[in-house]
Amino acid sequence: MSTRLRKITQQVLVGNVKVGGGAPIVVQSMTNTDTVNVKATVNQIIELATAGSEMVRITVNSEEAAQAVASIKEQLIAQNCFVPIIGDFHFNGHKLLEKYPDCAAALDKYRINPGNVGRGKSRDPQFQQMIEFACQYAKPVRIGVNGGSLDQAVLTRLLDENRQLAQPEPLAAVARKAIVLSALESAVKAEEIGLGKDKIILSCKISNVQELIAIYEDLAARCNYALHLGLTEAGMGSKGIVASAAALSVLMQQGIGDTIRISLTPEPGASRTQEVIVGQEILQTMGFRSFTPMVISCPGCGRTTSDYFQKLALNIQSYLRDQMPIWRTQYAGVETMEVAVMGCVVNGPGESKNANIGISLPGTGESPVAPVYEDGEKTVTLKGDHIAEEFQAIVQRYIETHYGKSE
Amino acid sequence: MSTRLRKITQQVLVGNVKVGGGAPIVVQSMTNTDTVNVKATVNQIIELATAGSEMVRITVNSEEAAQAVASIKEQLIAQNCFVPIIGDFHFNGHKLLEKYPDCAAALDKYRINPGNVGRGKSRDPQFQQMIEFACQYAKPVRIGVNGGSLDQAVLTRLLDENRQLAQPEPLAAVARKAIVLSALESAVKAEEIGLGKDKIILSCKISNVQELIAIYEDLAARCNYALHLGLTEAGMGSKGIVASAAALSVLMQQGIGDTIRISLTPEPGASRTQEVIVGQEILQTMGFRSFTPMVISCPGCGRTTSDYFQKLALNIQSYLRDQMPIWRTQYAGVETMEVAVMGCVVNGPGESKNANIGISLPGTGESPVAPVYEDGEKTVTLKGDHIAEEFQAIVQRYIETHYGKSE
Repeated sequence: MSTRLRKITQQVLVGNVKVGGGAPIVVQSMTNTDTVNVKATVNQIIELATAGSEMVRITVNSEEAAQAVASIKEQLIAQNCFVPIIGDFHFNGHKLLEKYPDCAAALDKYRINPGNVGRGKSRDPQFQQMIEFACQYAKPVRIGVNGGSLDQAVLTRLLDENRQLAQPEPLAAVARKAIVLSALESAVKAEEIGLGKDKIILSCKISNVQELIAIYEDLAARCNYALHLGLTEAGMGSKGIVASAAALSVLMQQGIGDTIRISLTPEPGASRTQEVIVGQEILQTMGFRSFTPMVISCPGCGRTTSDYFQKLALNIQSYLRDQMPIWRTQYAGVETMEVAVMGCVVNGPGESKNANIGISLPGTGESPVAPVYEDGEKTVTLKGDHIAEEFQAIVQRYIETHYGKSE
Repeated sequence: MSTRLRKITQQVLVGNVKVGGGAPIVVQSMTNTDTVNVKATVNQIIELATAGSEMVRITVNSEEAAQAVASIKEQLIAQNCFVPIIGDFHFNGHKLLEKYPDCAAALDKYRINPGNVGRGKSRDPQFQQMIEFACQYAKPVRIGVNGGSLDQAVLTRLLDENRQLAQPEPLAAVARKAIVLSALESAVKAEEIGLGKDKIILSCKISNVQELIAIYEDLAARCNYALHLGLTEAGMGSKGIVASAAALSVLMQQGIGDTIRISLTPEPGASRTQEVIVGQEILQTMGFRSFTPMVISCPGCGRTTSDYFQKLALNIQSYLRDQMPIWRTQYAGVETMEVAVMGCVVNGPGESKNANIGISLPGTGESPVAPVYEDGEKTVTLKGDHIAEEFQAIVQRYIETHYGKSE
């Protein structure tokens, strides 16, 4: 695990989950079911929580959605799912929280977007109303600014000020400043209204990687509120994964970020849990937290002319992830295990020795045997048609003998 | 584009491609066909080069493979593919380069792994032999150290020295130092033998993200050789993509890295080109280079209860990538274009205005119309059953009118 310094922020308790103040970086996600559909939403929340989402946000966009929230929370508890539920409000949050007290009470956190609480003179009183509900129900809030819905009043003010300067800054720099100021000024207002600093989380999301990095570096330097980190509208497929991992890794490497959400566009029909898995993979590959055993495998080259090692790597990776819900309750520490599946002798034995368990498959022209290494020592050499099954059994036995019973 | 500082290294010319010295960061990859199979290898090299690989490495692991290299190069040139070809040598490179001069002449670079050039007394003369061939044929080399095949003589020496210290360092720190020293000492030896600094590229790959970051930070601080960057054995699926993007983004953000290779394990049957696309996506999302228009799309939530916007995002992203081989030759600058596909009114109009072209689809309860924005201005509102086709036609027209004819 990494011993890098985390920036110490004010800790916020969301339901039973600690965010900031040195707590492990929390993985969260958001449903894409219609909140009005209680059954579908409950099922997806349980699916996300089972995959490892430690908080789940749902949109509360209409009266019908607000009416559904208390039932969603009840049914989750009835199914032993205690993951904190966050309500995402835009435009009409002040009205919904007023009209549906059971919704206000059932939610574990409110997300308020200062760019979407009301225009002109209605902005400040409607923001105040939402913060007052947070105080009344003793709920934390996320003041969540987004580049796509930036408070135009703040931007206009900064652009006016910028025009007065002898050397005006470029528009992009002013926009970055407006995003950060919108969050910080809203947080100050919330504190003035009476919300504690331990009830405030900030985020300033934007879809450009370098802009996001610059904004969070500025934000983190200027406050010690707990920070929610995410690249908004990251997109689909490997592009969304790459952009999110690039932006968040640069920031987390500097100790910035207390909770993360990965905003991937799912391919049609794909599971919503992918964003949870990617969030965990960012934290685990960077050495911040461990969630599931990781497989190191080589890319293959002209020395590995069968795809046998690819299939073995895929099999063992799926097997490890599928077993984790059971193993988590049985074997403490199994989530830190590293398994190497290597395609030939160039780096195979070395990499296999460095992992907890490794197998070095025979490349082209090598003798058709696969040495297995446990804790750096060669323990057995596999050959024949059942290498995959035998290796899986070795991994299972290793886990049983190396990881203590969970409490 | 980012204006971040790149560390200035000694430039190396590989074939017709500049590496280091302020040149754009080069994307490279490696075949996984049997080099002996000339036809399959030529086809894959062309496939990789077409996808954007600017150099391609092939394993030269046997006499038969060495015999195939000149034919591979000839057939590539006959098909107008001039991508530089790199030979990957382990164990027997000195013999193969001696016995097959046409192989030595046909390759554009030799990769030498100092941990795999020979054991004991044979190490230094065999390394020297390979460097002499590089001098004779005027070829650059990559001195490519890998954690899985680290020169055990260097490690043993450093461990011995470490034991003499009053406060010995942990094993991992000594191993990191050995990896860096193996590269630097080999480079000094190569220069002593007569190879120019402008013919030497270094790499120090390891499979752990934080170890890789620490190693390259050290390596970059201690030399100005051109650096080849990559996380070795990154693994399969999103884990391999995440680990590679995390490690490389942290280093490239510091200006470290002149050429990158993404070592993904392909899923069985998957195209080798994925590693090229991911490499390009890392560079483009970080703002270092542009290769293909990028799609920003929201993750969707309970406000976007149909998957229409997911399908539209997928369609337009595939369309843009598929057209690029043609557009690249027709429309200069099209690769910098940003397209936004947004699922509802929360961030839809704002994000669409920030992109070159954006469309904001109707979320639940919104009127069933989709405003389209070009350069920040609403130009048309689409509705009905043909939004996807009409939007694609608008994108095509935008490209025709906004990007000048390529030279």
